[in-house]
Amino acid sequence: MTFGTQSKGVYAIATTPFFEDGSIDFNSIDKLTDFYQDSGCTGITILGIMGEAPKMEPDESRAIVKRVVSRAKIPVIVGVSAPGFAGMRSLARESMDVGAAGVMIAPPPALRTDDQIVNYFAGAVEAVGEDVPWVLQDYPLTLTVVMSPGVIARIITNHPSCLMLKHEDWPGLGKISKLRAMQKAGELREFSILCGNGGMFLDFEPERGADGAMTGYGFPDMLTELVQLSADGKRDEAHDLFDAHLPLIRYEQQLGVGLAVRKHVLKRRGVIATDAQRKPAQMLTPTAKAEVDYLLARIAKKDKRAAL
Amino acid sequence: MTFGTQSKGVYAIATTPFFEDGSIDFNSIDKLTDFYQDSGCTGITILGIMGEAPKMEPDESRAIVKRVVSRAKIPVIVGVSAPGFAGMRSLARESMDVGAAGVMIAPPPALRTDDQIVNYFAGAVEAVGEDVPWVLQDYPLTLTVVMSPGVIARIITNHPSCLMLKHEDWPGLGKISKLRAMQKAGELREFSILCGNGGMFLDFEPERGADGAMTGYGFPDMLTELVQLSADGKRDEAHDLFDAHLPLIRYEQQLGVGLAVRKHVLKRRGVIATDAQRKPAQMLTPTAKAEVDYLLARIAKKDKRAAL
Amino acid sequence: MTFGTQSKGVYAIATTPFFEDGSIDFNSIDKLTDFYQDSGCTGITILGIMGEAPKMEPDESRAIVKRVVSRAKIPVIVGVSAPGFAGMRSLARESMDVGAAGVMIAPPPALRTDDQIVNYFAGAVEAVGEDVPWVLQDYPLTLTVVMSPGVIARIITNHPSCLMLKHEDWPGLGKISKLRAMQKAGELREFSILCGNGGMFLDFEPERGADGAMTGYGFPDMLTELVQLSADGKRDEAHDLFDAHLPLIRYEQQLGVGLAVRKHVLKRRGVIATDAQRKPAQMLTPTAKAEVDYLLARIAKKDKRAAL
Amino acid sequence: MTFGTQSKGVYAIATTPFFEDGSIDFNSIDKLTDFYQDSGCTGITILGIMGEAPKMEPDESRAIVKRVVSRAKIPVIVGVSAPGFAGMRSLARESMDVGAAGVMIAPPPALRTDDQIVNYFAGAVEAVGEDVPWVLQDYPLTLTVVMSPGVIARIITNHPSCLMLKHEDWPGLGKISKLRAMQKAGELREFSILCGNGGMFLDFEPERGADGAMTGYGFPDMLTELVQLSADGKRDEAHDLFDAHLPLIRYEQQLGVGLAVRKHVLKRRGVIATDAQRKPAQMLTPTAKAEVDYLLARIAKKDKRAAL
Repeated sequence: MTFGTQSKGVYAIATTPFFEDGSIDFNSIDKLTDFYQDSGCTGITILGIMGEAPKMEPDESRAIVKRVVSRAKIPVIVGVSAPGFAGMRSLARESMDVGAAGVMIAPPPALRTDDQIVNYFAGAVEAVGEDVPWVLQDYPLTLTVVMSPGVIARIITNHPSCLMLKHEDWPGLGKISKLRAMQKAGELREFSILCGNGGMFLDFEPERGADGAMTGYGFPDMLTELVQLSADGKRDEAHDLFDAHLPLIRYEQQLGVGLAVRKHVLKRRGVIATDAQRKPAQMLTPTAKAEVDYLLARIAKKDKRAAL
Repeated sequence: MTFGTQSKGVYAIATTPFFEDGSIDFNSIDKLTDFYQDSGCTGITILGIMGEAPKMEPDESRAIVKRVVSRAKIPVIVGVSAPGFAGMRSLARESMDVGAAGVMIAPPPALRTDDQIVNYFAGAVEAVGEDVPWVLQDYPLTLTVVMSPGVIARIITNHPSCLMLKHEDWPGLGKISKLRAMQKAGELREFSILCGNGGMFLDFEPERGADGAMTGYGFPDMLTELVQLSADGKRDEAHDLFDAHLPLIRYEQQLGVGLAVRKHVLKRRGVIATDAQRKPAQMLTPTAKAEVDYLLARIAKKDKRAAL
Repeated sequence: MTFGTQSKGVYAIATTPFFEDGSIDFNSIDKLTDFYQDSGCTGITILGIMGEAPKMEPDESRAIVKRVVSRAKIPVIVGVSAPGFAGMRSLARESMDVGAAGVMIAPPPALRTDDQIVNYFAGAVEAVGEDVPWVLQDYPLTLTVVMSPGVIARIITNHPSCLMLKHEDWPGLGKISKLRAMQKAGELREFSILCGNGGMFLDFEPERGADGAMTGYGFPDMLTELVQLSADGKRDEAHDLFDAHLPLIRYEQQLGVGLAVRKHVLKRRGVIATDAQRKPAQMLTPTAKAEVDYLLARIAKKDKRAAL
Repeated sequence: MTFGTQSKGVYAIATTPFFEDGSIDFNSIDKLTDFYQDSGCTGITILGIMGEAPKMEPDESRAIVKRVVSRAKIPVIVGVSAPGFAGMRSLARESMDVGAAGVMIAPPPALRTDDQIVNYFAGAVEAVGEDVPWVLQDYPLTLTVVMSPGVIARIITNHPSCLMLKHEDWPGLGKISKLRAMQKAGELREFSILCGNGGMFLDFEPERGADGAMTGYGFPDMLTELVQLSADGKRDEAHDLFDAHLPLIRYEQQLGVGLAVRKHVLKRRGVIATDAQRKPAQMLTPTAKAEVDYLLARIAKKDKRAAL
């Protein structure tokens, strides 16, 4: 399945595995790439915020892009958000040259008004080139930039190369409904919506019109199953599966600590070798680890994937 | 049970019931007061942020205080946060005069440094009077003021009249552990910790040392049972009960929409007459209401209180 | 001169004089009202942010409105910004009833998108009534709400009762130019623009199309002269006068300390009895007072009004 | 004069000159380096916020460091602030290797509590190495991180390699006084304080205890003269010189537009070839340019350096 306005399913937000000394663990990158693919993911997004992208040197970013793209058989999206358009352009073009399917762009925190936001993305598209397919990232909780449905519609209309919205507004269910209503009313062309926020509302988001998820929860295999159940109209089964995981999804959704939880789970699942993060980082205390393990044990009663 | 450093259980964050025209519905206030009491709550907190306090005129605030205090047989805490110390003082003194057990004070959003925060509370205590028992509200997500454990310790140490911490940092489990560790090490005197955030982490908070909850989730009877199960060491039962409600707790934890969800549930439970809010307010769409009702129906399979 | 879309000159942002114990000094209010009038001000704005409005009790606010309105022979605008529309409405209606010329409304800090801002003012106008003339306050530095020229245009177009913009964006010169250009292009009806920010850009603002100032600098008599010089096309004289005062204007423009400087100057000019503020407040150190006095002495060499 | 705890005078915050196409103009870098030196600056700070550092690629940053260090005969400080400590370390070590005198580190915007700030700098110093001399940047207006005098004192005490404070709090005069009082009381060791904020308070900052300025105003030759006049106790002359430039200093202090003003002035002075910025950037309108030119003409009446 290619990256496009009809993309569905789950794009995994990939973590970046490190050795304890902070250097990149490329073997774990390979295993992680395979794991996402084997979990039924329809795409992989690398170098996002939860991929610790801002802590990477450009050479490292390029090396990661090459490694993942060359191994993955599913589309790879590269986060290219940067303070300057020059850096954004160079990473975007190089990523596309080695085979990435597209890039993801988030607005910088200083933007406030509708026009500022719309103009920013006009500048970004001019910089990376109109031929580069891209994902619009809407993440107010962390970026403090709030995009109304109208602003998203303007950006999508202005830029045919914008194929997908990574939606992680909170609350955001109403926004999905409004965007899809604008489409039905013929005011907006087709585009894909994949949801973030760690999956915290993935029980209802597809019902509102989302095409799936783009997030990095440690059980992507559960996410793909959940999105499929929802697509098949099996509402109760979808909610049952979601509810079984919600205590851990919720635990992972703590600012700062969330990435540590995610890496701990991926390590316990045998996918990555260590749960190391690049500094500055927030790590789990032994008590917190025990809490996560307790939640895993509880999930395991309903979903054997969690029996680690 | 009185309001003090050993307070335990659940203090309900009371909503303020209105008629559709925005005037205060005092009959519903009475029913709500009884409901909280009958639900096993050990206290009631009125005129908090979720009680729409800033939208009230001072005369109305005083009328609400009188009404609740005169009816309740459990301690009543009054939110007195205000931009000026003069207004804070008058509401605090009048509340105590009519029988309130204490007041709750939150820091204003402009505070940043440790010293600014500590000095602010020194001024507030000077204003309301050292004889007024009070709750320190720690709510960074909304107030943008972040208090380290050290700052909380300084405030508690400086002010013997501070008896309780309303804890709703996120992530906040580590903060509870640190504060309790400081107490064990003899660095900090006794004080009560009740947790907010809508109950989102109430499965683990008592295990970390919290004495219970101060929040307004539409099932306070579930919250009191949960805190008791935890106090009795029935960990799995506590988590089972929590997990059954978590999908709704999570749904209610959406900024802006949360209060609408809470009032909708309380109305459906027959406690308040309408789910009206004072303007400006965010209301539930029909789709959102249907989602809440669906969650209630799902909870009802495990907890018959939700069978409405 | 009435309050309207053609208002020009200087509307003084009135400070609220207190006695040392924090009670309101009504005699000083009278003297201040006369002083603004005698300084050539074409209007007075009371209960603004720099008038310590949020620290006032409603009864006090009403008493201040009555006092100023009954004494002033120039239009009086009342700041009615409030967290709830009910409180905003009651202060607005009561102010109009006793003879205020209009009200001023600022957006609450949580607003972000264009639509949120436009909708908020629709709700506010519905609340106070379409018959109440009002000033739109645009003050991003303190309120964190950024209104594009387009948003301001939408609000002005939606609400015939909006007669004036209090402009204090920073940087804001371009915004004045854009709004006036929209008017010339027939996209926007007539409205008055008075500028704030303590006068920091009042040398250029009238050249860009502003009608004058709405600010509270301790020399309103200088501000009125400056605006007149500019209106008379005496560019160099206007800048000479402005430059003479700029060191003090700049000193007063320090967040937190600014009001203390302003009250110190007004006290030294014999207008108000004390420089007391309601708590919490930031006061001047002896060193800071000496610096202000030094600046006054320097200004006095060029403008004898500063010879105190 | 070396970079140390006794550094005085003016460290120029260097702009980065570009060609119109956004590529780096190394010839203008040379001219700018010479210009700062010939203006009497005692140091140069490169790759700061106003040097558009975040828009540079690492290879470019390194090239700029080499170029300036190899040409300058005065100490060169390199801004190394970065989201990750790995990137901070590599730029710091490479800069020192080619002859930089030290580095400058600003706190990331997410920090709030005293402990968070202190711990961040502990991590940063561990990353770059305790042997690298550095400047602590205190810039709340842009970075939103507020450091109390106590926090600055803790950082300085913890890290002997911290030799200087770049002070640009606003208001900040009181902070300088407090820090110097702590030193006099023996609570704090010696360190240099150079002030930023475009020079907006440089008339009073040396009187409060600052050693000079670290800022990029287009007339560094005026700044060095001003600091010297103040050091010589010629208070009135210092203020006269300052006041003559204040209208332009103030104009340059507009967020976003400020850098455009600065580059325009440096271009008009013949130091850099173009006033181009890397995108995204805010440029001057013709009206704004004319205003700056008018201010230059007015300054020229008192300071012939402005006669361009």
